[in-house]
Amino acid sequence: MRVLILGIDGYLGWPLALHLMNKGHKVSGLDNFVRRKRVFELGSDSLTPICEFGERLSILRSIDSDFAFEHFSLGAGLHKQLRHILDDFQPECIVHLAEQPSAPWSMADVESACETQHENIIGTLELLWAMKAKCPEAHLLKLGTMGEYGTPNCDIPEGYIPKRCLNSHIDELCPMGGLQFPRKAGSWYHLTKVHDTFNVIFACNTWGLCSTDIMQGPVYGVSIPDMKDEEHLTRFDYDECFGTVINRFCVQALLGHPLTVYGAGGQTRGYLPLKDSINCMTLAIENPPTPGEYRVFNQFESFYSVNELADLVAEAASSFGYETEVAHFENPRKEMEQHYYKSSNKNLLDLGYVPTKDILNEIKILIQDLEPYIDRIKQNVIVPAIRWDLSHRRSQIIKEEEV
Amino acid sequence: MRVLILGIDGYLGWPLALHLMNKGHKVSGLDNFVRRKRVFELGSDSLTPICEFGERLSILRSIDSDFAFEHFSLGAGLHKQLRHILDDFQPECIVHLAEQPSAPWSMADVESACETQHENIIGTLELLWAMKAKCPEAHLLKLGTMGEYGTPNCDIPEGYIPKRCLNSHIDELCPMGGLQFPRKAGSWYHLTKVHDTFNVIFACNTWGLCSTDIMQGPVYGVSIPDMKDEEHLTRFDYDECFGTVINRFCVQALLGHPLTVYGAGGQTRGYLPLKDSINCMTLAIENPPTPGEYRVFNQFESFYSVNELADLVAEAASSFGYETEVAHFENPRKEMEQHYYKSSNKNLLDLGYVPTKDILNEIKILIQDLEPYIDRIKQNVIVPAIRWDLSHRRSQIIKEEEV
Repeated sequence: MRVLILGIDGYLGWPLALHLMNKGHKVSGLDNFVRRKRVFELGSDSLTPICEFGERLSILRSIDSDFAFEHFSLGAGLHKQLRHILDDFQPECIVHLAEQPSAPWSMADVESACETQHENIIGTLELLWAMKAKCPEAHLLKLGTMGEYGTPNCDIPEGYIPKRCLNSHIDELCPMGGLQFPRKAGSWYHLTKVHDTFNVIFACNTWGLCSTDIMQGPVYGVSIPDMKDEEHLTRFDYDECFGTVINRFCVQALLGHPLTVYGAGGQTRGYLPLKDSINCMTLAIENPPTPGEYRVFNQFESFYSVNELADLVAEAASSFGYETEVAHFENPRKEMEQHYYKSSNKNLLDLGYVPTKDILNEIKILIQDLEPYIDRIKQNVIVPAIRWDLSHRRSQIIKEEEV
Repeated sequence: MRVLILGIDGYLGWPLALHLMNKGHKVSGLDNFVRRKRVFELGSDSLTPICEFGERLSILRSIDSDFAFEHFSLGAGLHKQLRHILDDFQPECIVHLAEQPSAPWSMADVESACETQHENIIGTLELLWAMKAKCPEAHLLKLGTMGEYGTPNCDIPEGYIPKRCLNSHIDELCPMGGLQFPRKAGSWYHLTKVHDTFNVIFACNTWGLCSTDIMQGPVYGVSIPDMKDEEHLTRFDYDECFGTVINRFCVQALLGHPLTVYGAGGQTRGYLPLKDSINCMTLAIENPPTPGEYRVFNQFESFYSVNELADLVAEAASSFGYETEVAHFENPRKEMEQHYYKSSNKNLLDLGYVPTKDILNEIKILIQDLEPYIDRIKQNVIVPAIRWDLSHRRSQIIKEEEV
């Protein structure tokens, strides 16, 4: 299948390209390298020593000598460039990973909030127009986030409210695609994914495009079975913006620092290892929706609270001799710290997704993957300074009785 | 009360300023005059001969010699300018009317779609950040549209789904503000209002801002009792982008042309005359929400189908000797042409809104207001060429048996 990956140099884009190409799919890619730039600007860097994109290009061309890549930039020329690329490549599937993915980065100041919303919303909108013009039958695989739903204190379905939840007189709502489960996003970044969702639904309903909107939980890990040596590893961020919680805990454990749980630690989400994310996206790509269809896949392996993750990382690290403890930090976010959480991921299970069920072992693999790079860790990028109330103080460890 | 009006030169901004200032409120305003520019670019012009803004400024300064106005432009300097203005003026209420308001304009091409989403979403986001920094206690009166809800084939509540509609296990959804009634917008423009809604809710929940989000139906009319002479009239657009259905019908009736109903004509919405819109906004301004509150007002007088409006305009015009007939046109939009429609507007009625119940008389007043300007009508701007399927053909009259 011809697959175009937007954001091919990113955390997910790079391993997805390797995996699809190894499976014999015809892949091409776009990137603007802004993720590398933003992590540098935070004073951080990928802990895994990822190579320059030129070297990555050589790796991809050693699998497929015709592999095509284009550098793109948001701005006045984007739409013309996208139309040209779609015309040229005629993708059957477009995987859109080219969005600003950090909630804290979007909350830092007005510039980054506006940049996040512009880049994500208008970027996707330009893509929808280019698809309508050049490849209206292609499948748009769009990365959303489980964070679109927030923490609703009830079972989260896949995109739509099940009819059993509604009394009959609003049963007939929205005949063109059911009643969307309410979105309640927790940052300017998460809101862009909600806005994308509504824009994509409109394009499917009005223009007959088709899309899979993936509500993905946080992904962890740096390797998948397709990776044969060090240059194949994907990036690993652990700074306060682009590092998600398991990443940060692993780095803290390697340093022997306390694992910093934000607030009470009951915040629960669906997580998945990198190889599961790549497998799930591949399943979606190889089983496309029908013309005009908009479908939602909730993508995660299982649910864990932050406290559970801290205990798992401490246990995994201890097995390699890294002893650490758990400390509670003032929560820089505004979020519920204890709540009910359960969600369906039936659509992917029905397509054949077999979740990797041993998270402890997956965390051990991650720690082993990171161990060679301990000396590269920059300690000062971990503690959060961006706060949802805009006070921009660094969070402090809070005493046990306040938790 | 100190009220800052963004978009003070617009269709609603101008009469609202006159009305609030006559009531003794301290008003100031911003505009970038882009509405005038865009209507000119379509080859059209306001049918009412509105004066240059300099003259409007003199009129406002004859009521309040200190009246302050600033020209603003979207772009890099906007946030700084907004912060400066809010600091200076310390508004108690900000009325945000400075958005691109046309659905057809947003559907015309990729540039206008992106411009609409950028201008509306990022404009409001910049405003929210400036409010958080400079006047977090001010009331944001934000114009949304009844079009956010689409045509759901059930009663439309005011923003939230009533608990009686839900079975108990999703009754507790979204504890920070209830379960939002699902939005199903029908154009890139309408989608911006949905995105604004979610962004504003987040700012209220996270930063404690307060807002009234007005879901307004189409407004008609060019005069309110505060207007004493011709220079006071507000603008009147009748082109395919900025002219709404009653406007277009009135102009067609004055020319003796057929009234062009799009499709079957069963499309039903809530409408209101200009004076009701101004009264409703004034009620909302004078009865602000509490800190942190986000409330929704559905703002309309009553529901009418397009066929009913055509008959009303034909009858009103006939009483002045303008005989016309109704013709059905191919619908350039993708929308339901026959559907159930009913909505609540209880919140405004509870605040004391008394709807003007005689739409026939209101349309007669509008026709009389427009009669002096018949010679200014540009006939070629009325027939729609922008189509939701992007085919850009001019719509044709369809035969009666196809309706």
